[in-house]
Amino acid sequence: MSPTNHQVRLAARPSGLPKQSDWNFTEEPIPTAGAGEFAVAISHVSLDPAMRGWMNAGASYIDAVEIGDVMRAGAVGRVTASEHPGFAVGDHVYSDFGVQEYAVCDGRGAIKIDPSLAPLPTYLGTLGLPGMTAYFGLLDTGKLKLRDTVVVSGAAGAVGSVAGQIAKIKGARVIGIAGGEQKCRWLTDELGFDAAIDYKAEDVRRALREAAPSGVDVYFDNVGGEILDAVLTRLARGARIVICGAVSQYNATDGVRGPSNYLSLLVARASMTGMVVFDYAAEYGKAAAELAGWMQEGRLISREHIVEGGLSAFHDTLLGLFAGENTGKLVLRVGSD
Amino acid sequence: MSPTNHQVRLAARPSGLPKQSDWNFTEEPIPTAGAGEFAVAISHVSLDPAMRGWMNAGASYIDAVEIGDVMRAGAVGRVTASEHPGFAVGDHVYSDFGVQEYAVCDGRGAIKIDPSLAPLPTYLGTLGLPGMTAYFGLLDTGKLKLRDTVVVSGAAGAVGSVAGQIAKIKGARVIGIAGGEQKCRWLTDELGFDAAIDYKAEDVRRALREAAPSGVDVYFDNVGGEILDAVLTRLARGARIVICGAVSQYNATDGVRGPSNYLSLLVARASMTGMVVFDYAAEYGKAAAELAGWMQEGRLISREHIVEGGLSAFHDTLLGLFAGENTGKLVLRVGSD
Repeated sequence: MSPTNHQVRLAARPSGLPKQSDWNFTEEPIPTAGAGEFAVAISHVSLDPAMRGWMNAGASYIDAVEIGDVMRAGAVGRVTASEHPGFAVGDHVYSDFGVQEYAVCDGRGAIKIDPSLAPLPTYLGTLGLPGMTAYFGLLDTGKLKLRDTVVVSGAAGAVGSVAGQIAKIKGARVIGIAGGEQKCRWLTDELGFDAAIDYKAEDVRRALREAAPSGVDVYFDNVGGEILDAVLTRLARGARIVICGAVSQYNATDGVRGPSNYLSLLVARASMTGMVVFDYAAEYGKAAAELAGWMQEGRLISREHIVEGGLSAFHDTLLGLFAGENTGKLVLRVGSD
Repeated sequence: MSPTNHQVRLAARPSGLPKQSDWNFTEEPIPTAGAGEFAVAISHVSLDPAMRGWMNAGASYIDAVEIGDVMRAGAVGRVTASEHPGFAVGDHVYSDFGVQEYAVCDGRGAIKIDPSLAPLPTYLGTLGLPGMTAYFGLLDTGKLKLRDTVVVSGAAGAVGSVAGQIAKIKGARVIGIAGGEQKCRWLTDELGFDAAIDYKAEDVRRALREAAPSGVDVYFDNVGGEILDAVLTRLARGARIVICGAVSQYNATDGVRGPSNYLSLLVARASMTGMVVFDYAAEYGKAAAELAGWMQEGRLISREHIVEGGLSAFHDTLLGLFAGENTGKLVLRVGSD
């Protein structure tokens, strides 16, 4: 472990895919906890598609990261010093500690986590915001019903893989859309999806016609773009589309592609609804307990794709996320557990 | 009145705006009512944006009009002969009698109407499907709440003008979007809209920022295209967009323009929901009674734009609809009351 705190800061607002020069790698002394604060040694940093949006100017559902700031990221770590009554040395914690090795925190937004229940990186995935997003997006926004036909895009990712498994647990027929044969096989053979469509090799529209002959009741969309347009042609009456993200569009330099088949919403009397997981913060605990229970029963598989390599690997790992190189939750290790 | 029945039949499926040659003007003997049928002399034919969709191949929310068929249209008229127990000579009726002067009907889908309560063309507008569309689109699909800020596009049209007035009656703040100063003045000065935006003269996005400073709670969309994209930038948290139609896109030859700002649904936790009025058929009577009551109280103004000229004026009148030449419900007179 280094005697200094290494950090990744936003140097410039990218156009299109982030470039190495959009980051500044800085170092400073390890910060010390003041009154009401604790210090944490970060073990794992979360890499999420949403990060791309945070790099743009202007507030969206959350403020932009300012130029010069440590890049925002969810992270887990271990408390090394504390002047906060709620956190003791040795506690493991989650918060948006940022892309760095050490942080201090006043406790707001920090959650104590239990490494005996699940490995630390799981708290960045299935038991963290991606899991919460899948849970509330599917059950609340998507209003999942028994025997629904559910389609999930980005299905081998952190959110999609959990959303599809929850849908299976709840008695739905589940079709995943992912890129590549390996991911697709993982969905059907290990996660129990009823079908998987490899969008890189198949005509998604045609494949959906076969896999969902009576139409799609719930579409959990993580990708937008052409895949959203394809699913729009296969909606069942009263379908619900959950707009969770649009990773195919985040790096577009010629504007977002709107869904040109959106008038299918009219024909199918369907809805398209946006969701932001933060709205469910008061219910995270209950959802995490249910997800952890399913994991213990072996009904929900949590997979993390952990990149060893520390902060210097951050940029390439982020590009790998947008290239769809990960299966499961993408995590960067920056320190020991 | 002619001794023969003149008809407008679909001759070819148009690409883009319908051409005169997409129609065949035919004549045949006036049809006679068989057992269980009645004959009707049509007085007024309804012209609706939805007609453009019916001219395309393939079923949508309703079957396409086949080549050679009399063009589908709602119409009102007077029963001239009847072998149907439910309809007597002299009764006034509404049904989708088509673009012709006479029709026979077995009663299915036919509704008796009362010309002492409202002029016949009103049954093609405020007390007909456009009024029903406005009523159920706003109150059911749009889930209108007291003090909502409501935006209506195509606001000077048959559906939009009623939707905006219902919203006012229900205690909302209402902004209409229409083309031209005259229409806009009609909305604010006669219908009581709180504001009107002339999309031909104003920057809709900027005008909305002024007229709806705290955002839009319900957007009743009849037009799609650029205006939908503009409203998407001004959504309030939890906004509901009602997709009723997209008249700006119906004649597009290079594909429908999808709403490129649809990710605002996520930021605003908003929804976009399609509606088809036929789903509410069982409740038409109740809604029409309420609308008629508001008309009698002077709280709801019904305006019809009646084109005299008979079937030979059909094509030009339809083009006028797509050019936005009408204020209120566009109706073609084809016979006497």
